[in-house]
Amino acid sequence: MQTTQVLLARRPVGEPHDDDFEVVTRELPGPQEGELLLRVVYLSLDPYMRGRMSAVKSYAEPVEVGGVLEGGTVCEVLESRHPDFSAGDVVLSHSGWQTHAVSHGRGVRRLDPSRAPISTAVGVLGMPGFTAYAGLREIGRPQPGETLVVAAAAGPVGSAVGQIARLKGARAVGIAGGPDKCAALIDDFGFDAAVDHRAAHFEQRLADAVPRGIDVYFENVGGRVAEAVIPLLNEFARVPVCGLVAHYNETEAPVGPNALPGFMRQVLTKSLTVRGFIQREFARTLFPDFLAEMSAWVADGSVRYREDFVTGLENAPEAFRGLLRGRNFGKLLVEVGAPPE
Amino acid sequence: MQTTQVLLARRPVGEPHDDDFEVVTRELPGPQEGELLLRVVYLSLDPYMRGRMSAVKSYAEPVEVGGVLEGGTVCEVLESRHPDFSAGDVVLSHSGWQTHAVSHGRGVRRLDPSRAPISTAVGVLGMPGFTAYAGLREIGRPQPGETLVVAAAAGPVGSAVGQIARLKGARAVGIAGGPDKCAALIDDFGFDAAVDHRAAHFEQRLADAVPRGIDVYFENVGGRVAEAVIPLLNEFARVPVCGLVAHYNETEAPVGPNALPGFMRQVLTKSLTVRGFIQREFARTLFPDFLAEMSAWVADGSVRYREDFVTGLENAPEAFRGLLRGRNFGKLLVEVGAPPE
Repeated sequence: MQTTQVLLARRPVGEPHDDDFEVVTRELPGPQEGELLLRVVYLSLDPYMRGRMSAVKSYAEPVEVGGVLEGGTVCEVLESRHPDFSAGDVVLSHSGWQTHAVSHGRGVRRLDPSRAPISTAVGVLGMPGFTAYAGLREIGRPQPGETLVVAAAAGPVGSAVGQIARLKGARAVGIAGGPDKCAALIDDFGFDAAVDHRAAHFEQRLADAVPRGIDVYFENVGGRVAEAVIPLLNEFARVPVCGLVAHYNETEAPVGPNALPGFMRQVLTKSLTVRGFIQREFARTLFPDFLAEMSAWVADGSVRYREDFVTGLENAPEAFRGLLRGRNFGKLLVEVGAPPE
Repeated sequence: MQTTQVLLARRPVGEPHDDDFEVVTRELPGPQEGELLLRVVYLSLDPYMRGRMSAVKSYAEPVEVGGVLEGGTVCEVLESRHPDFSAGDVVLSHSGWQTHAVSHGRGVRRLDPSRAPISTAVGVLGMPGFTAYAGLREIGRPQPGETLVVAAAAGPVGSAVGQIARLKGARAVGIAGGPDKCAALIDDFGFDAAVDHRAAHFEQRLADAVPRGIDVYFENVGGRVAEAVIPLLNEFARVPVCGLVAHYNETEAPVGPNALPGFMRQVLTKSLTVRGFIQREFARTLFPDFLAEMSAWVADGSVRYREDFVTGLENAPEAFRGLLRGRNFGKLLVEVGAPPE
């Protein structure tokens, strides 16, 4: 059995370049006792991967140069020598940017294709959806009548954040890039208002969209969107921070003025709560609740989702670049192999 | 009866100037039914007052130009037409920068001079001590074996923060300006380590003083001290923000580089909690606990305090300027009138 892999050829400086990736094909040893042979169907592309490509200390070890890039995957079990899995099972795994993998089975979870499309296991019913759910439940805590703002709102985290906030009785205002995405926020995801961060007078439009200020800002982008949001925060507002995609390709500190003292003054005078988190912090305590609640919301249509498929592993690097630029529309997945029947 | 008052003559730009204050003497009407005539003994000077002198929107209304400057006071009741108070009582009030005042009694609390020196009601057993207590109990939550850092550590908030943290089993590292204050941190307040922010290689000395990183940073200063602390924070560190005295006299945003994106990256990758607060948020729920616990700690010597007295209301403006420069050593009070027998 052979596997085609995308390796980290060198650490990107700024936006990842084609030469930072290398595609190789290797012979894969057969599964040993206790192992599984997996065929990757979907590879999830997510902004956090940019951090893994850098050597900077973060919450997780970086990918080594020459190593296979990491990523969540939906796979078909081709051969099982593991007691918990059988050939033909569809599973969630963390097999990375490759077409086939041998796994020891730890961290692999069987999916039930009759309950939800298998791609949702890396989207609305997976890591991005859980990021939205846990960040709101533990940090953002939107209350009836409050106003929530989220950026990248047409993406898998943002769209779930807005819809869950509305289910909790809050007013949801989404920020996205371009009129098509903004229309989808209203029409597909039911946001109360949408603001295009590429349009003229963005700051004023945002202020107009939140006449009672902002009680929850679900931070996943940073940059000038965040700078427009911060002055509009209300006293006791909560800011769950799950990502800063506007900064992931930055190579040095942005030029001044230094906005940190002004930000801290807002934190002080408005008694703000700013809390960074990685969803896995809450996995043990909240994931079962999430899966039950979110599956029901998806099944009854109270939470909708949108997927953006790219075909072929060789197109993953270009798709990933687009993700950091906001070019995708919905959850970005690479269809690495044909979905099972 | 006459009262001498310090008025806000104009709003200061940068450091308050003598011409920003005006001292006047006025006739005070006698107390009406339900009122008290107070003689101010101690006026508390606190960094938050700088914010009240500016017109910028904050958590409280600014003092009006021409109005008496605000402040917590310890007073003797000269005459009472209020059922809850008698002449000769010593009370805590918010009578501001003046020698005498007529009060309706709301927000006035009788003190027991036999339990603790009356000056402590605006210090270790008052607002500064409660700021330390509430910020640690609700936000900082120091755990046994953890490391806490606080700046302005020889001041009334910082010294209480360090001592309470040690009572909770944490290691307390204090930052202060100059060798005398640093010696007092160790000798008088029992900090585990002291770092002089005016000494050469401050950043390196701080890093050396926290070999296991920082789990709680009690933020009351901002500026370059905060910039040195932030990179040393551990995963899941908590940052209660109760003040930013380094910035109170600033007139414009500091020049770049822009430190905000780097700070937010720390918040994200280390799952930090940054929470601004004003002590009054917790007064209703925690003040009785505070008074009981802190009084016991002060009585048995587990929490010590230091006071810095200035004599004469006319010296309050200069003393206040010194406070913002860190010139005081301990809780700064103006002895406005002679203490009662």
